[in-house]
Amino acid sequence: MSRHIVIVGLGLIGGSLAKALRGFEGFDLIGLDVSQPTLRYAVEQDIVDRVETDPAHALAQGDLVLLCLHPQGIVDFMAQHRDHFKPGAMVSDVCGVKGAILEGARVLPDTVSFVGGHPMAGTEFSGIQHALSNMFHGAHYILTPNDQSSPEHLALMHRLARHIGCANVVETTPEQHDAIIAYTSQMMHIIAVSVCDDPCLFQYQGFEGDSFRSCTRVAALDVPLWTQLFSMNAGALCRALEQLEQHIHQYRLTIQSGDREALSARLATSAARKRKMNHLEELSGAVGRDRA
Amino acid sequence: MSRHIVIVGLGLIGGSLAKALRGFEGFDLIGLDVSQPTLRYAVEQDIVDRVETDPAHALAQGDLVLLCLHPQGIVDFMAQHRDHFKPGAMVSDVCGVKGAILEGARVLPDTVSFVGGHPMAGTEFSGIQHALSNMFHGAHYILTPNDQSSPEHLALMHRLARHIGCANVVETTPEQHDAIIAYTSQMMHIIAVSVCDDPCLFQYQGFEGDSFRSCTRVAALDVPLWTQLFSMNAGALCRALEQLEQHIHQYRLTIQSGDREALSARLATSAARKRKMNHLEELSGAVGRDRA
Repeated sequence: MSRHIVIVGLGLIGGSLAKALRGFEGFDLIGLDVSQPTLRYAVEQDIVDRVETDPAHALAQGDLVLLCLHPQGIVDFMAQHRDHFKPGAMVSDVCGVKGAILEGARVLPDTVSFVGGHPMAGTEFSGIQHALSNMFHGAHYILTPNDQSSPEHLALMHRLARHIGCANVVETTPEQHDAIIAYTSQMMHIIAVSVCDDPCLFQYQGFEGDSFRSCTRVAALDVPLWTQLFSMNAGALCRALEQLEQHIHQYRLTIQSGDREALSARLATSAARKRKMNHLEELSGAVGRDRA
Repeated sequence: MSRHIVIVGLGLIGGSLAKALRGFEGFDLIGLDVSQPTLRYAVEQDIVDRVETDPAHALAQGDLVLLCLHPQGIVDFMAQHRDHFKPGAMVSDVCGVKGAILEGARVLPDTVSFVGGHPMAGTEFSGIQHALSNMFHGAHYILTPNDQSSPEHLALMHRLARHIGCANVVETTPEQHDAIIAYTSQMMHIIAVSVCDDPCLFQYQGFEGDSFRSCTRVAALDVPLWTQLFSMNAGALCRALEQLEQHIHQYRLTIQSGDREALSARLATSAARKRKMNHLEELSGAVGRDRA
């Protein structure tokens, strides 16, 4: 009897996972979504073996369930369908925040195993039409196992990450994951939107160099998604932003003081940190394809 | 009798100007630099017609003098050599700040014309070895004429900008130029170094996405150059940074408040501004090649 993976939410990540999971340990792929055009596309393009619109019916077959909804959607889905998961099912998610998801997963019954997951990949697009089978090639797959996670489930997630082409799997705590994401990703998005809030944005348009375009590229973000990501990681994000505000403020004070030696010393320190970082990156040679 | 352009400083921009100015209205190109290897390279690669090491001797021949040193170097050079410029000479610079340069140009005698200039192009490299003949293709050339600028000189600068491939020439005030540069370029560099000042930089290394790499790319900056650029544009830059600090702070307060509707509304406004900007950019179709 064949085993089934149920992918809940066939968006950019869910769709890419489906494409990348083809042939994984003989699992059949079932796609669950509320959008008829999405389901039709998934069938027409042979992205999954079968589609479902009824969560209870889909979950009853799910040996492995991958929750690929927006963060709040994942929390709500687990609460609403806690009793519909198949006993023995292994449940994971792909969400960019982990503390809030693991909190939400506490509603799940003892009969299922849960492992928080975050395959660190994406593009600025959304929707199954932009799904890529090689989306996860070279990416990090972060797992945040806890007392709800079975060893078999954890081992399966490692094999799954390898199958979809991830460069490595990192196990960490949800706190550590959320602090990393706050600094390396979420803060970049707050910077981008803050720069675009400047009243001069349109007045000075046409004079931007690459640094401006690079810094603000992610400002045209998916508002509902990022509202949830920021809100569900408020603690770590605000700590990172406070640091940033302080560092910018210190630069401003140094520039205002007119003390060129002090400014030069500060810049030398920061630039050396960046050069060291570039050097370490060259040594490691590992660069994922996360565009977000 | 042939006319001469003297390029003072054969670095990345001076060298690129020399390459791009080949054949411009029959001018001979004279390169002035303190570095023997640079001068040797310029001759060997046929980048200029002749090199000089003695400023007074070079300036005595200069019908058009292009100052391509670091900002403070330009101010110091004009003060030191005010009496060496050929009567009737036309003098311009290529510096990324204009107010401080025009202030410095006040030492020049009435017998020469000065027009402040900023061809908005560059790469993250420095030195004549990285000079490109097409460096200015599609770029903006900003001019800040004032009462020291002759009409003939201004007309010549327009023709020069066209010859080196600039997409357009914009005349503006030094105040306006410096405010534009503070926002569209200098602030991006302060953001980049400030992000790299975070104590977590190395701890979280390996988990950056493209947004992090894009935002921090320019942090490994040329410290002496940027110390001068920031210091000589302190007023405009600090006003831009103060705005940025306020916008980041407001985002932090909104996230901390837990008011998702307010956060969503703020993000929607910022993202719409960025989308409008992208749209206007597509319409205009003009993108320079400034990598800084």
